[in-house]
Amino acid sequence: MEDFDVIVIGAGPAGEVAAGRLAAAGLSTVIVESELAGGECSYWACMPSKALLRPVDLAGEVGRVTGLRLAGPIDAGAVLARRDAVVSQYDDAGQARWLDSAGVTLVRGAGRLAGPRRVEVTTADGGVRTLVANHAVVLATGSRSVIPPVAGLAAAGPWTNREATGARAIPERLVVIGGGVVACEMAQAMRGLGSREVTMLVRGGDLLTRMEPFAGEMVARSLADQGVDIRTHESAEKVERPEPGGEVTVRLASGGTVRADEILVAAGRRSATDDLGLASVGLPESRPVEVDDSMRATGVADGWLYAVGDVNGRALLTHMGKYQARAASDVIVARVRGEADDRPGMRDRADRAGAPQVVFTDPQVCAVGRTEAQARAEGFDVRVVEHDMEQVAGGYLLGEGYRGKAKAVVDERRRVLLGVTFVAPGAAELLHAATIAVTSEVTLDDLWHAVPSYPTVSEVWLRLLEAYGL
Amino acid sequence: MEDFDVIVIGAGPAGEVAAGRLAAAGLSTVIVESELAGGECSYWACMPSKALLRPVDLAGEVGRVTGLRLAGPIDAGAVLARRDAVVSQYDDAGQARWLDSAGVTLVRGAGRLAGPRRVEVTTADGGVRTLVANHAVVLATGSRSVIPPVAGLAAAGPWTNREATGARAIPERLVVIGGGVVACEMAQAMRGLGSREVTMLVRGGDLLTRMEPFAGEMVARSLADQGVDIRTHESAEKVERPEPGGEVTVRLASGGTVRADEILVAAGRRSATDDLGLASVGLPESRPVEVDDSMRATGVADGWLYAVGDVNGRALLTHMGKYQARAASDVIVARVRGEADDRPGMRDRADRAGAPQVVFTDPQVCAVGRTEAQARAEGFDVRVVEHDMEQVAGGYLLGEGYRGKAKAVVDERRRVLLGVTFVAPGAAELLHAATIAVTSEVTLDDLWHAVPSYPTVSEVWLRLLEAYGL
Repeated sequence: MEDFDVIVIGAGPAGEVAAGRLAAAGLSTVIVESELAGGECSYWACMPSKALLRPVDLAGEVGRVTGLRLAGPIDAGAVLARRDAVVSQYDDAGQARWLDSAGVTLVRGAGRLAGPRRVEVTTADGGVRTLVANHAVVLATGSRSVIPPVAGLAAAGPWTNREATGARAIPERLVVIGGGVVACEMAQAMRGLGSREVTMLVRGGDLLTRMEPFAGEMVARSLADQGVDIRTHESAEKVERPEPGGEVTVRLASGGTVRADEILVAAGRRSATDDLGLASVGLPESRPVEVDDSMRATGVADGWLYAVGDVNGRALLTHMGKYQARAASDVIVARVRGEADDRPGMRDRADRAGAPQVVFTDPQVCAVGRTEAQARAEGFDVRVVEHDMEQVAGGYLLGEGYRGKAKAVVDERRRVLLGVTFVAPGAAELLHAATIAVTSEVTLDDLWHAVPSYPTVSEVWLRLLEAYGL
Repeated sequence: MEDFDVIVIGAGPAGEVAAGRLAAAGLSTVIVESELAGGECSYWACMPSKALLRPVDLAGEVGRVTGLRLAGPIDAGAVLARRDAVVSQYDDAGQARWLDSAGVTLVRGAGRLAGPRRVEVTTADGGVRTLVANHAVVLATGSRSVIPPVAGLAAAGPWTNREATGARAIPERLVVIGGGVVACEMAQAMRGLGSREVTMLVRGGDLLTRMEPFAGEMVARSLADQGVDIRTHESAEKVERPEPGGEVTVRLASGGTVRADEILVAAGRRSATDDLGLASVGLPESRPVEVDDSMRATGVADGWLYAVGDVNGRALLTHMGKYQARAASDVIVARVRGEADDRPGMRDRADRAGAPQVVFTDPQVCAVGRTEAQARAEGFDVRVVEHDMEQVAGGYLLGEGYRGKAKAVVDERRRVLLGVTFVAPGAAELLHAATIAVTSEVTLDDLWHAVPSYPTVSEVWLRLLEAYGL
């Protein structure tokens, strides 16, 4: 039996941030990880997907700018090699060194709760180590891809985000189940890197349904322009793959058939709480761990259990997990020291305002706060303003055929922004201004004095305020 | 004699914005312009310079991204043609139509004050029209390039920003006098578009001296890497150009000689107040027109004279001129109507906080608020935090060899940002978040909850706050 001040289960971004801050504050900290230290984001999600998308995105930009021409199609082999460098060849030695230098003990194995403050770790050799926390246990096990119960799908060995971002070669024909962020990003990446046929099977009528409707519409138009075959109101009824790794045949609900060389399932994710021993501390199994705004599990006596990142189900986004981890670790340190535990950084405010998110398609989609529909459903007195971004000089200058759209949702009572969405090529860095404005509830009258530089795309802020009537 | 509620002299961006808002509010408005309606920015500065820089910038990006390769050098002829489209072939018919549709009367000719509320316009045919303002006159004549008193320089017919942005061909050899924004941008553009030799003569030791020192250093390093020959502590002593348009020989203060096919003077600008008739209303000639925060000239009785944009000398930036024009026009309307003239948008707050600015070099430089040196000189209790942007995942993913730096100047007493500077490729759209934070004095504790999306470059905000100790 080994004891630590705090045990963190899961060394993804959220777990690592929590462990790093706890150790920096002088608490003895252990982090338990059964896969690679660094987690989903570093090896199988954000990082490799952006490594694949970056050249595709840039090729799109070059296509819009007069005077430049690419020598030929993207060199997919070189891009996959760069992706391998970005994921450190799927080797976590660098992360392990960082944890070590941060004073965090890394225990490799599968951690599960075994009663209050107690964690059992099953190591690769089948042994079991028991860890005991003097103060707190932080769950940071993330989430896993959901494989829908379609006949033959699981047996077909489909790609999830892991295999797609880790592709060793670009499939000639790809069928994608889903219409969310992973589906759109990977459809774009694979098509851009050389897939001849990419078919998306989308259950409803729209892509990116958690965003403002125009976001999904603009991305759908762009994907279609690039040759992606988007089938809405469609789903897989049966999947056949007689030979492992061989051709896949998907029978569609509408009656047709799609044949492909690979099938990607991007039908959502679920908090990774299976086999976490939640029942041993009185919590329901296989559900997100409910937490208060200090990230403390609400269903556990004595308040020693915390959950940060995807596992608590608040927002399945790396940056929100890290944010929650900062709050949780600061709270734990304060509580251990008997200091005030309600200082400004110690509560999650951002999830309530609406987590920011960027979709790295072309056009990029970025949004923060509430959509118009959400704001209306919550009973706000809403006014909406919109502007086409190609009408902004900075957008027009980015290239011929540049198109974008911005939408702001205003709370009329307080004259603050409830939500902002930008959809345009390369719009990702526009978002943070909106995130500050929404989270800090900067009034429109104050935003009027934040003058966007000419000629940047950010001048769309001025146009939105003018459209509002300022 | 014709009378209008308001007379605006100068149809650049600031004048047009003022006239448009005044007319929209129902005031009869005339705008007087001796050159092209649309002004310096549209034809001879921001717009054409960015049209020239965009492909150069993008070529730099392609060079950093694995898997893409350009077919060859930039097609300068195509870029110049695109520039011509961006400047509407130097034809202002579109602007004239816009003024007309906005209900603004356009009078073509040179306007000058001829006593209180009185403007004389000398038209192209030598005739003089006299206009009288019922309420106000707004000066918006902008600024002009300064030609330093170097022997032979004026006689050599040097390029200013006008001829450089309007180049009909890329000079084989270019010598640039100056180290500010225009000098850096045009050196980069011409070198990127094919100039074989670009030599910059910089009086002091640094480029971009009004920015944080690292900005000029990083731009200098990049220009040098691209083959621009930067001579610091150097100046032209004598310029010889025996044949108009022929070879230029510049004798240097240090004793050497530079020969070039063209010479660009980018040694600053001066408010365009010559021949404006300022003496007729009791103001000093040939100096910026001093204004209060409502843009009203301080030296004129009865408060009927306003000045917006470069002519008032506050900030020689298009977006600040337009901002000032919004304030001035709203104030004029309120005063005409006898309404409150101190509403939130009716005073210039932004110039006081420090105008935002983007330099479109590679790396791009963007800054808002005060530099560290300015903040210290003004007596603030300053703390500085910095971060290298290639260490942010979003920066690293933009390409191999991506380098950037961010610096924030914190007012320790109030825990707000006094200034922020980013220097990195493609950083322009990062600025507006800083502009909101600085102008609205969002506290660091609030900024902590504005979570930058992963993996965007904006995550540098998190790193800056962590460096501060949050």
